[in-house]
Amino acid sequence: MDDVQIDADRLLADLRALAAVGGTGDGGNCRLALTDDDAGGRELVTGWMRDLGLDVRIDRIGNVVATRAGAEPGLDPVMTGSHIDTVRTGGRYDGALGVLAGLEVVRALDDAGRRTRRPLAVAFFTDEEGSRFAPDMLGSLTYVGGLGLEEALEAVGIDGAVLGDELERIGWAGDAPVPGPAPHAFVELHIEQGPVLEEAGDVIGAVSGVQGISWQQLTLTGQSNHAGTTPMRLRRDPGLVAAEVVTFVRRLAREMGGEQVGTVGRLNLHPDLVNVVAARAALTVDLRNTDEAALVEAERRVAAFVASAAAGEGVTVATQRLARFAPVDFDPAVVALVERTAGRHGLPVRRMPSGAGHDAQMLARVCPTGMVFVPSRGGVSHNPAEHTDREHLAAGTQVLADVLVELAA
Amino acid sequence: MDDVQIDADRLLADLRALAAVGGTGDGGNCRLALTDDDAGGRELVTGWMRDLGLDVRIDRIGNVVATRAGAEPGLDPVMTGSHIDTVRTGGRYDGALGVLAGLEVVRALDDAGRRTRRPLAVAFFTDEEGSRFAPDMLGSLTYVGGLGLEEALEAVGIDGAVLGDELERIGWAGDAPVPGPAPHAFVELHIEQGPVLEEAGDVIGAVSGVQGISWQQLTLTGQSNHAGTTPMRLRRDPGLVAAEVVTFVRRLAREMGGEQVGTVGRLNLHPDLVNVVAARAALTVDLRNTDEAALVEAERRVAAFVASAAAGEGVTVATQRLARFAPVDFDPAVVALVERTAGRHGLPVRRMPSGAGHDAQMLARVCPTGMVFVPSRGGVSHNPAEHTDREHLAAGTQVLADVLVELAA
Repeated sequence: MDDVQIDADRLLADLRALAAVGGTGDGGNCRLALTDDDAGGRELVTGWMRDLGLDVRIDRIGNVVATRAGAEPGLDPVMTGSHIDTVRTGGRYDGALGVLAGLEVVRALDDAGRRTRRPLAVAFFTDEEGSRFAPDMLGSLTYVGGLGLEEALEAVGIDGAVLGDELERIGWAGDAPVPGPAPHAFVELHIEQGPVLEEAGDVIGAVSGVQGISWQQLTLTGQSNHAGTTPMRLRRDPGLVAAEVVTFVRRLAREMGGEQVGTVGRLNLHPDLVNVVAARAALTVDLRNTDEAALVEAERRVAAFVASAAAGEGVTVATQRLARFAPVDFDPAVVALVERTAGRHGLPVRRMPSGAGHDAQMLARVCPTGMVFVPSRGGVSHNPAEHTDREHLAAGTQVLADVLVELAA
Repeated sequence: MDDVQIDADRLLADLRALAAVGGTGDGGNCRLALTDDDAGGRELVTGWMRDLGLDVRIDRIGNVVATRAGAEPGLDPVMTGSHIDTVRTGGRYDGALGVLAGLEVVRALDDAGRRTRRPLAVAFFTDEEGSRFAPDMLGSLTYVGGLGLEEALEAVGIDGAVLGDELERIGWAGDAPVPGPAPHAFVELHIEQGPVLEEAGDVIGAVSGVQGISWQQLTLTGQSNHAGTTPMRLRRDPGLVAAEVVTFVRRLAREMGGEQVGTVGRLNLHPDLVNVVAARAALTVDLRNTDEAALVEAERRVAAFVASAAAGEGVTVATQRLARFAPVDFDPAVVALVERTAGRHGLPVRRMPSGAGHDAQMLARVCPTGMVFVPSRGGVSHNPAEHTDREHLAAGTQVLADVLVELAA
């Protein structure tokens, strides 16, 4: 049977139209979860869903699932989708691509007069970004039963608003139950948000899973002293220990190799004065790996180094865990299907982990799941300059279409 | 001839009384330059000066010089003194000790019925701390002609006030001209503000000079990136380079040894988020040495290291000089006199440089100058916990008395 043919012009027109909702005038858009602009985006996208004759259901946390009936009644749907909320400085592809590409697949099936055996569902999940309400991926986590509805509705935003109140206020508290029904399979198309595909000249990422994440905050306490009058040998400088940790994290990631990454993105000295040896330093350590055992090893080595460096300088350490997620492995059959499909279209493809979190990692708890990545120019996202070439958007959407059709057969 | 005998009780009572002006309730005091509390301190101290029958003159920048006549007319006075302004979180000894010990020397001379050959002057200089109006040591710098009167009067404070206006407002703009007359010699008693004397078990520091100071700000610009999706080899992380500079500064100071110290007291990342490789890092480098050639060498090695580390990471550097003072050497004869006098009293003494700036370094431009240091408990100053033991205050004041008497003979 021939492939369905997606139409990049329609997809691009939809992406442009959605980006105008909450547009920030600099190429970006801001639709923080459950704001009026998020509601505007929801209106636009569900309008398109209804125009396509899909069965639109809204659940109690505001997730939207639009289903195209299959040929054989009673089967679980194959689902695709992502999110349409954005960070404050959002680009136009992060999330939106995965939802609007799903609608383009529906249109392409309609054009071809094709009906899949299983139903095909296109979803968008509430508050994926977590920029207003923590945790991120809140809607999909609630959909799969990883977070209780009451707890989710009580989340308090950075602006003090309560999630449940905001959901009611904008009129998007539906009545479909959560947890929702597990699909037969889930596949999400998303921009890479990193530089790997572009750097390698690849067009499609067959995402093998999502990295495990370990976030810690270290607070180092030493002795504040006069920078002029205190000899080096009498110093207990927490800023020095912080700096040694930064260089160690880089060395560790290099030595461990593989998918290990490590970042110190936050570092503060107190009192932060040019002529005062700091009394206190606070820094974060972000470690990620696709392999849980390796991530545990990285955490262990950082802890050992911190203890030794701090003791050497006479500085005390307090460690606070900010976040910890184990790696997620996607379904090997789905990953292989994405890879094979890209290859069949002659598209350069690579297996790769995702370094960022996605709704797909939540759906992976309840069904076979995979993701398709397309390149991000310069690796940039969460930024108005976020960009993916038209041909890459088209290629990713075509691969998504073929994968969904095969899974729904 | 017998030594004059200083009385520690009188000195301590004066220190306590002055500390009550602008007292902060935690053992400290706040008399920022030319505030109402500074005026209160000035009233109290000049009252004591007049009670002692001294000839009190106030110059056009608010410096106060109180002179006890000598036996032989027409000779230049031997001067002692310091400052009575404080930082916001000031202790009770920094500055105040040098002024009030001078008055105690006058009282001891009166008690002994002794008249020195040369006049003896006790001074306090305006705005030594520089906490309200830059630069620090403004009054003594103006006194020796290093800063023009107009420029000094136009200094704008951190609160937006103009120095000349504030001087008029509190009624301390005098009519004695600046630059003022060069004394025959100048000797200042001051707390060490560092841990060296306490650590060594010494009681008197015969200060050989003041370290040269080099302050630079480095602004490092790299590429902001997602901490999860950006492989280590593709990063251009200015935070890493900043950390490498911090560890290099420590290594450099250790390697150079001697009096070389180096401090990174300020370090900021932007955007300073746990999961974002920083786009920009700003840090300060404070280098000090008593030897100008060594200080230049330290600056050169830091610059070379920064250039190489930045190039290795693909990060650009902008360097801004914040301050640069050459080292000051005190008069060898005065330094030797301090040392000999302490030895004569059986006080453990060490020659040492000052790591902090003092009014004496300005007076050193116009006359033979020295300083006497006494220990600071724990090296702490600019803090309500600033403390010097009673016996050390007494020892320092006695050494000061004997040195002044000898210089005035």
